[in-house]
Amino acid sequence: MASQLNKKGEAWSARFSEPLSELVQRYTSSVFVDKRLAFVDIEASLAHATMLAECAIISLDDLNQIKHGMAQIRDEIERGEFNWQLILEDVHLNIEARLTTLIGDAGKRLHTGRSRNDQIATDMRLWLRGEIDHIHTLLIELRRVLIDLAQHHVATILPGFTHLQVAQPVTFGHHLLAYVEMLARDSERLLDCRKRVNHLPLGAAALAGTSYPIDRQRVADLLGFDKLCANSLDAVSDRDFTIEFTAAAALIMTHLSRFSEELVLWMSPRVGFIDLADRFCTGSSIMPQKKNPDIPELARGKTGRVNGNLIALLTLVKGQPLAYNKDNQEDKEPLFDTVDTVTDTLRIFADMVSGIEVKPAAMRAAALQGYATATDLADYLVKRGVPFRDAHEAVAHAVRVCVERDCNLTDLTLDELRAILPENASLIEPEVFSYLTLEGSVASRRHPGGTAPEQVQLALNAAREALK
Amino acid sequence: MASQLNKKGEAWSARFSEPLSELVQRYTSSVFVDKRLAFVDIEASLAHATMLAECAIISLDDLNQIKHGMAQIRDEIERGEFNWQLILEDVHLNIEARLTTLIGDAGKRLHTGRSRNDQIATDMRLWLRGEIDHIHTLLIELRRVLIDLAQHHVATILPGFTHLQVAQPVTFGHHLLAYVEMLARDSERLLDCRKRVNHLPLGAAALAGTSYPIDRQRVADLLGFDKLCANSLDAVSDRDFTIEFTAAAALIMTHLSRFSEELVLWMSPRVGFIDLADRFCTGSSIMPQKKNPDIPELARGKTGRVNGNLIALLTLVKGQPLAYNKDNQEDKEPLFDTVDTVTDTLRIFADMVSGIEVKPAAMRAAALQGYATATDLADYLVKRGVPFRDAHEAVAHAVRVCVERDCNLTDLTLDELRAILPENASLIEPEVFSYLTLEGSVASRRHPGGTAPEQVQLALNAAREALK
Amino acid sequence: MASQLNKKGEAWSARFSEPLSELVQRYTSSVFVDKRLAFVDIEASLAHATMLAECAIISLDDLNQIKHGMAQIRDEIERGEFNWQLILEDVHLNIEARLTTLIGDAGKRLHTGRSRNDQIATDMRLWLRGEIDHIHTLLIELRRVLIDLAQHHVATILPGFTHLQVAQPVTFGHHLLAYVEMLARDSERLLDCRKRVNHLPLGAAALAGTSYPIDRQRVADLLGFDKLCANSLDAVSDRDFTIEFTAAAALIMTHLSRFSEELVLWMSPRVGFIDLADRFCTGSSIMPQKKNPDIPELARGKTGRVNGNLIALLTLVKGQPLAYNKDNQEDKEPLFDTVDTVTDTLRIFADMVSGIEVKPAAMRAAALQGYATATDLADYLVKRGVPFRDAHEAVAHAVRVCVERDCNLTDLTLDELRAILPENASLIEPEVFSYLTLEGSVASRRHPGGTAPEQVQLALNAAREALK
Amino acid sequence: MASQLNKKGEAWSARFSEPLSELVQRYTSSVFVDKRLAFVDIEASLAHATMLAECAIISLDDLNQIKHGMAQIRDEIERGEFNWQLILEDVHLNIEARLTTLIGDAGKRLHTGRSRNDQIATDMRLWLRGEIDHIHTLLIELRRVLIDLAQHHVATILPGFTHLQVAQPVTFGHHLLAYVEMLARDSERLLDCRKRVNHLPLGAAALAGTSYPIDRQRVADLLGFDKLCANSLDAVSDRDFTIEFTAAAALIMTHLSRFSEELVLWMSPRVGFIDLADRFCTGSSIMPQKKNPDIPELARGKTGRVNGNLIALLTLVKGQPLAYNKDNQEDKEPLFDTVDTVTDTLRIFADMVSGIEVKPAAMRAAALQGYATATDLADYLVKRGVPFRDAHEAVAHAVRVCVERDCNLTDLTLDELRAILPENASLIEPEVFSYLTLEGSVASRRHPGGTAPEQVQLALNAAREALK
Repeated sequence: MASQLNKKGEAWSARFSEPLSELVQRYTSSVFVDKRLAFVDIEASLAHATMLAECAIISLDDLNQIKHGMAQIRDEIERGEFNWQLILEDVHLNIEARLTTLIGDAGKRLHTGRSRNDQIATDMRLWLRGEIDHIHTLLIELRRVLIDLAQHHVATILPGFTHLQVAQPVTFGHHLLAYVEMLARDSERLLDCRKRVNHLPLGAAALAGTSYPIDRQRVADLLGFDKLCANSLDAVSDRDFTIEFTAAAALIMTHLSRFSEELVLWMSPRVGFIDLADRFCTGSSIMPQKKNPDIPELARGKTGRVNGNLIALLTLVKGQPLAYNKDNQEDKEPLFDTVDTVTDTLRIFADMVSGIEVKPAAMRAAALQGYATATDLADYLVKRGVPFRDAHEAVAHAVRVCVERDCNLTDLTLDELRAILPENASLIEPEVFSYLTLEGSVASRRHPGGTAPEQVQLALNAAREALK
Repeated sequence: MASQLNKKGEAWSARFSEPLSELVQRYTSSVFVDKRLAFVDIEASLAHATMLAECAIISLDDLNQIKHGMAQIRDEIERGEFNWQLILEDVHLNIEARLTTLIGDAGKRLHTGRSRNDQIATDMRLWLRGEIDHIHTLLIELRRVLIDLAQHHVATILPGFTHLQVAQPVTFGHHLLAYVEMLARDSERLLDCRKRVNHLPLGAAALAGTSYPIDRQRVADLLGFDKLCANSLDAVSDRDFTIEFTAAAALIMTHLSRFSEELVLWMSPRVGFIDLADRFCTGSSIMPQKKNPDIPELARGKTGRVNGNLIALLTLVKGQPLAYNKDNQEDKEPLFDTVDTVTDTLRIFADMVSGIEVKPAAMRAAALQGYATATDLADYLVKRGVPFRDAHEAVAHAVRVCVERDCNLTDLTLDELRAILPENASLIEPEVFSYLTLEGSVASRRHPGGTAPEQVQLALNAAREALK
Repeated sequence: MASQLNKKGEAWSARFSEPLSELVQRYTSSVFVDKRLAFVDIEASLAHATMLAECAIISLDDLNQIKHGMAQIRDEIERGEFNWQLILEDVHLNIEARLTTLIGDAGKRLHTGRSRNDQIATDMRLWLRGEIDHIHTLLIELRRVLIDLAQHHVATILPGFTHLQVAQPVTFGHHLLAYVEMLARDSERLLDCRKRVNHLPLGAAALAGTSYPIDRQRVADLLGFDKLCANSLDAVSDRDFTIEFTAAAALIMTHLSRFSEELVLWMSPRVGFIDLADRFCTGSSIMPQKKNPDIPELARGKTGRVNGNLIALLTLVKGQPLAYNKDNQEDKEPLFDTVDTVTDTLRIFADMVSGIEVKPAAMRAAALQGYATATDLADYLVKRGVPFRDAHEAVAHAVRVCVERDCNLTDLTLDELRAILPENASLIEPEVFSYLTLEGSVASRRHPGGTAPEQVQLALNAAREALK
Repeated sequence: MASQLNKKGEAWSARFSEPLSELVQRYTSSVFVDKRLAFVDIEASLAHATMLAECAIISLDDLNQIKHGMAQIRDEIERGEFNWQLILEDVHLNIEARLTTLIGDAGKRLHTGRSRNDQIATDMRLWLRGEIDHIHTLLIELRRVLIDLAQHHVATILPGFTHLQVAQPVTFGHHLLAYVEMLARDSERLLDCRKRVNHLPLGAAALAGTSYPIDRQRVADLLGFDKLCANSLDAVSDRDFTIEFTAAAALIMTHLSRFSEELVLWMSPRVGFIDLADRFCTGSSIMPQKKNPDIPELARGKTGRVNGNLIALLTLVKGQPLAYNKDNQEDKEPLFDTVDTVTDTLRIFADMVSGIEVKPAAMRAAALQGYATATDLADYLVKRGVPFRDAHEAVAHAVRVCVERDCNLTDLTLDELRAILPENASLIEPEVFSYLTLEGSVASRRHPGGTAPEQVQLALNAAREALK
């Protein structure tokens, strides 16, 4: 009966009177997607078999044969020689069928006390746990690269924008650290998600648990799971962890998308704050002069893909009654695609950021345009006793004069400045002009979180410390 | 210089000082996705070359060489012998590089007056037009199968549900025709979408048009496009057609998802209205008795995938400035996946529906439960002069009596029925019981769109007529 | 029994043994959302009543009383004096209860042969049809304003961007017409959608049709519906039209979002291509100099809202079995919100565009930066016999020289230019410099869809013609 | 100048030359949405003012006046007497304008050292923190109600379904605890989210920090924030917390939607496992017998709404450059709507679950249909030495015999049972029938997470413990 798993309808054929059509096989088969889980599937099977033997549900001899067979299967997969078969539907049956071919009855005993329902849930959690750990490492690497770049620009001034209008001068190091903050939250969020990934479903069997005297805790220990899934019905139907992970991934991509938006803008010739290394850009098949920031544009585009995966998963789970339904087979592609997209994008960004060429002169020129220190003038007045709202109003008058004359605030004479506050003109003294410089403006914001170089250095130190 | 296209950085290498890294190549390359467009790419190139020759932009000899070279390339692709190269980035450059290898300078002239920006837009529209036509055929086929099944059940009665509560009896033929209506709308929507797909972008070149004296209308005629894209900037950046198509596809999947929900419910043993052929079901690896309706469950799950693709595309386009941005490279996977999902699901449904085994006895038993003809009793009273709201209220009292006694309306005596309308008891005559039968109820709804068998037959005839 | 509709549990109270809790009332009641449909609800009721009287299902006297009562109710609503009651759940029961209070038994007869299921579907279609017509008008108005602005800038040159890098010079009129194209597609799409909105559900009653001898076609004629919904089950459960409309609306918002992205960028001081009128901008509570392009930013943000509404509706319908389920009550808010968002945004854009101040000098300065005419140089070579790919490669070399020297192509001497094509240097003649001017580049793209001013004028004429 | 805030263009009017149009005002104004934040806005302003006074940036007298004015304003709002003005744009300016009217110059000093950018971020975090705490309480309450119901049904047997096919018997208590597990994860996820909500943005001012010698930590302490936002640019632009919360809320709604799907199914007459109390159901305007499970259907429908809100927020943030952009104003409606939807749904579910009437007889009848104990027969064979796969195959044969005869496994004779395993018939002994009872099946799954009543009781105890 070893050949039973080698024919259509494999694991349940006796109950059925006709075979699946070829289209149905293709539609229902998942093996060419889920074979990616082969190694965790084997790992989980070995832990299961070890426990079965320890609990005397199978013999030690069975266990040894299973170990031996699995070693060979792992080897075949690694060498690309494993013969994946559509007709065997999924990674589990492909491996089990091969095992039975290799070792006979011991292979048929492996599935004792489990079901594909708890098996796939276990595989996915094991696999995702590893991927989360990998992405976490990549997030740290990207933060490190951003911190290194920021370290060179603790005091490099560029215009801080709101609404893409010049707002106030900030330093480029400060600006880069904003992304370090976002990515730090992403790391934290992933670790929180990992806690909920790292529960063991195995033992739930099809949906109700099993009548064999299994030891679930032993399997959890062998596989490094923190906790048992506490309810068998929930264990086989729960896909929350894929959704929570994908939502966290959507935020990572959103952050990279925001950064990309800025990189593309900064590369645009009218702005010209940075240049990306040639190896991250492509040209045009028709316009010989082009150097396009493809990587950030693609990253921006790929954000939609992860958002789409999130919707796919939410839509999938919504409205499913307990316990397992076949709808869940559709969870793998969005999850795998999300992991791949985030992983590739993080890797490439770490590389790309380290190759950013910064152009401080262009940044400075832009900061000098747009009345970036108008707020500093208002603050100057407030510190001399003018209520904030009145100071704000007076400076707005001064800006309007400058707009009409097409000049800067520093181009006004002292008398012209004093004219904005006719009733208290003497409050404005010649030293006011030092408050209107970019350096003066930046240096004055010297509280935690502010853009003063000394604060940026402190923030850098703290960000670097957090990576340890 | 033929070899120029065979090295990294291919079409623009002279402007760049360093090669793409391997990861960057993989991240930016699309060839292993867009090679699917190879045949339409060749078709569009041949139309372009024909026009170039007719306009004396290239020589007739060039054209002949291009035709010859393309014939060989098509052949190589069909035989699976074409050597797709990641380093050549996309389907266009792979084919152009091979062409230049085969025919030399004539190959280098093919790209005259066009850009990959208008080329890819043209390929996608040509390809999608063909897929829409195919899906349209599949929709018709599924409608035909549903109509055929409905024809056998013009008068088979099952409970019509609202809120999954028994509402009123309907016929199964009528029920199936509801899905025929949905799919007919889908067909109509696709044809409307096709109108907007079938515009020619070629000639827009990179974004501004070209300085060669091209004849865009000639290319449109050769390729069967109804119209020219009227603005070059829009032509290269427009991806509306992918979104409109995917939205239409999401509705198709939504309809199949609703039908799936019903099939799964009808297969559930407590309901048991139908059985699906074994070849559309799978079993369990642990529970030997299981026969699971995998196909409808998977179709339900795949709906999320298409919704996700729609969000991916909307997110992609939102906020892109004119004209082309690399973000758009991400449009292909969601579009291809949507086409594949819809195509496979429609094919498999046509096959599956033809194998549905209907169980009229179970349907009838269910229709007799739940007071399905209470509305008929109310209508009976109204026709005897009771205002509708009062009749409704009186019958509600009767139902409450039945609920408390756990009996049916037909189990009440004439006197008991009369007691619900004490002031007008004599309005209720013995013939009332004939109005409370399932057949009487169904037959009475005999206006267009109603469930009376004669109307269902008329609707069937009309639906069949619409397929011609 | 007139008071029946004035108490909790109103239309079905006799079957129930306990009242709804206050929270349940609030959760299930829709009246404070759907009262917006009051006028179409009345219009549809009057058509229904007219038909009932013509078919002798109610008396002419009943009809006259209903007309009289409805006139008063409409008046009360218009004057803001109608007493909407949460306890009466929805717009239908609120109006029916008031009618019965006003006219007694005739009011109770109005609901004969219909159900709230077909009533709400009819109301929504009537209402949405009107809103589509309104939005269509607003789309035309915005196109008109864009065309008027484009007319002033048929020959105003700005850099055409791809990847936010300077690509080739285009005219601002041409650029604006790209948006006219998008909006023209939106109009077309809405009209296609309108065809599928304009079907009459009334007569489907709860789900199966009615036993009264109604004349559905008469009601359709009275209300201006093109067709009857052909299947009663589909008629009451179909919400496709809300999804199709919302998808079309998402594309409208996507187009406005793309335009907004450009407006925000063009307003940014480093770009400075335009200025928006003060009345469309706001300032800052802290930075006195700020003038922020709030309207386009908000429009960009509101795009997410419409995309979200689309997902809400798709999620709502997916997986619903036939026929009506209460889930559908959730269709109104996303639909209403979508209509409001699109309507307001289109109105405000038409106003805003007419107030755009264009700054041709800034546009020209930007076009002179970034080698915008490199393609023209390549084309010049091709026309002298150099294969396109070789010409492209040669010009890329020239650009690289310019990048290193920080100069423009026109800054190279004839000899320097000739050096890029050492084997064919004599092909390059002094006239080449005229091909490298912005005007020369633009004028040369003189085929349909190209950016040559003469073509832009033709496109303008055609776009204006299409508005008639 | 107190009146400055009372006119159009209020806080920045001096820089502008024309007023906002009425439509623009309505489009840009948020006050009728964000006035919901009034109390947290006041709370945050008082903490800010206290700090300003302690740091000697304003006088103690100013602080006292501000406290006094704010107390009055809070009072006016509570009494519904506050005059919210569209023209004053948002909650902040409405309150500040009123404050200045009440107390003059001290009111104008309140905005010193802050901006609306950090103010709104602070308000939203304060408000959301409170809502999270409330939702957390509601989650606990619903878990408690589910546990109480489960306690009554530790041993009540119903069929466990997979694919809506009968799989294995489980107990209803076990089934309910699956939802308790889901909701416990939701609680945990919310608390993780809360950690990232509870950071203080105030002090970031517009985007760069402020030049006043503020003490951010003091404000954090006064408002109970755990941490300072560490980067001012990030502080004003970060909306991650709204997305993370909404994703967590989408999972809550997804869980309730799954439960709703089951409630609706269980209420359907063919299933009839439960009845919902009348006060959670509504009737029909036409069908007098109907009792519809409106609440679960609405909850299912509202899930789409929260998924839509999630997409709205993700779309909003994606692609925004630093720092604040007006797009972010669109964050409030999706967030508020999500909080309201989740809050109302949780409250109503807690109430509804406590009123579920369970029908054990119907559950038992259903469990006896569909070969629910076939797995137990296979396990019986395995325990006698048959390899699992062979046992599974043998039992599948037995089921097929039963399907053909339309009988149950327990209807087979011992000899018939033995015939499925011809080579080892004697392994099957008469006691086998005890393994095929529902009680025997359930009782045998007695490991942690299994459905044996003793394990369900232990799980109940643990779940109850977790609420403490």
